[in-house]
Amino acid sequence: METQQAITPAPTAELFIKIAVSNWQLQNTRFNSILDKLTDEELSAPTAPGRNTGVYLLGHLTAVSDGMLTLFELGDKLYPQLEQPFIKNPESAELEKPSIGELKEYWHNVNTILQQKFDAMQPADWFTKHASISAEDFTNEPHRNKLNILINRTVHQGYHMGQITYLVKK
Amino acid sequence: METQQAITPAPTAELFIKIAVSNWQLQNTRFNSILDKLTDEELSAPTAPGRNTGVYLLGHLTAVSDGMLTLFELGDKLYPQLEQPFIKNPESAELEKPSIGELKEYWHNVNTILQQKFDAMQPADWFTKHASISAEDFTNEPHRNKLNILINRTVHQGYHMGQITYLVKK
Repeated sequence: METQQAITPAPTAELFIKIAVSNWQLQNTRFNSILDKLTDEELSAPTAPGRNTGVYLLGHLTAVSDGMLTLFELGDKLYPQLEQPFIKNPESAELEKPSIGELKEYWHNVNTILQQKFDAMQPADWFTKHASISAEDFTNEPHRNKLNILINRTVHQGYHMGQITYLVKK
Repeated sequence: METQQAITPAPTAELFIKIAVSNWQLQNTRFNSILDKLTDEELSAPTAPGRNTGVYLLGHLTAVSDGMLTLFELGDKLYPQLEQPFIKNPESAELEKPSIGELKEYWHNVNTILQQKFDAMQPADWFTKHASISAEDFTNEPHRNKLNILINRTVHQGYHMGQITYLVKK
């Protein structure tokens, strides 16, 4: 039997973008699978005693992902109203919040729009600076580009996924 | 005042590697900062009712990171004895485990050795197949290289970091 030789492709920008985007997609798929397992009541419970509820984490992740639209200069945020209750303030602030149904809709919309925008980006776009780093800092730290943000946000989503998964019954 | 123009560097392999390795390092730094905040007693507590203890997660992450040595064909695992109690079996299996002091030492050793090995890798090495994918699958999915594994493991570490952080008093 002949053993097939593994051919290593050239390390192109497209390949690296595929790595980053596929890891982001994997986290979204897993997050959706957790959401599918939880009733609204379960999602409203604290993920551990005295910690954020699943609803707060859903709003938080939606708001943070929505922020990629402006960070990547792809347009305005879809739901800027999420910033105060889910990023700038802790859950205890008890600010006005959308319903769970609305939050789930926002979550899916943000991810759908982001995927469309990502698909339309040129490979070189991913290596340009994001909106929150100065030109001077970017010159000194050229790895702090849009692709880096996507990876950072993917890890951040994984972090909160480790928490929301505690709402799923064993 | 003149505004400095941001210069976008070419998307080189070195730049991708810097992005992936720096995100991995950031997770290690954060994990170490959590470890520094916890007494052995606190680390031995469940991260949430009925969930894994901090000690189990420390052993689990050490074992998974140790596995990158073999996945990347950089040598043998330093602590293969962690695989049964921290990867193959749940905490409830109550298998023989190292002490907390030993686990912390293993964690730091694994990360030190990995960093040394990563520093010695050539850029092209990161784009080669890892040990757990067949040559055939790699030909069809060439993004499943070593760099992809590092990003995947970084997200995995973030996932458990979201859990172990529940042991830190608010």
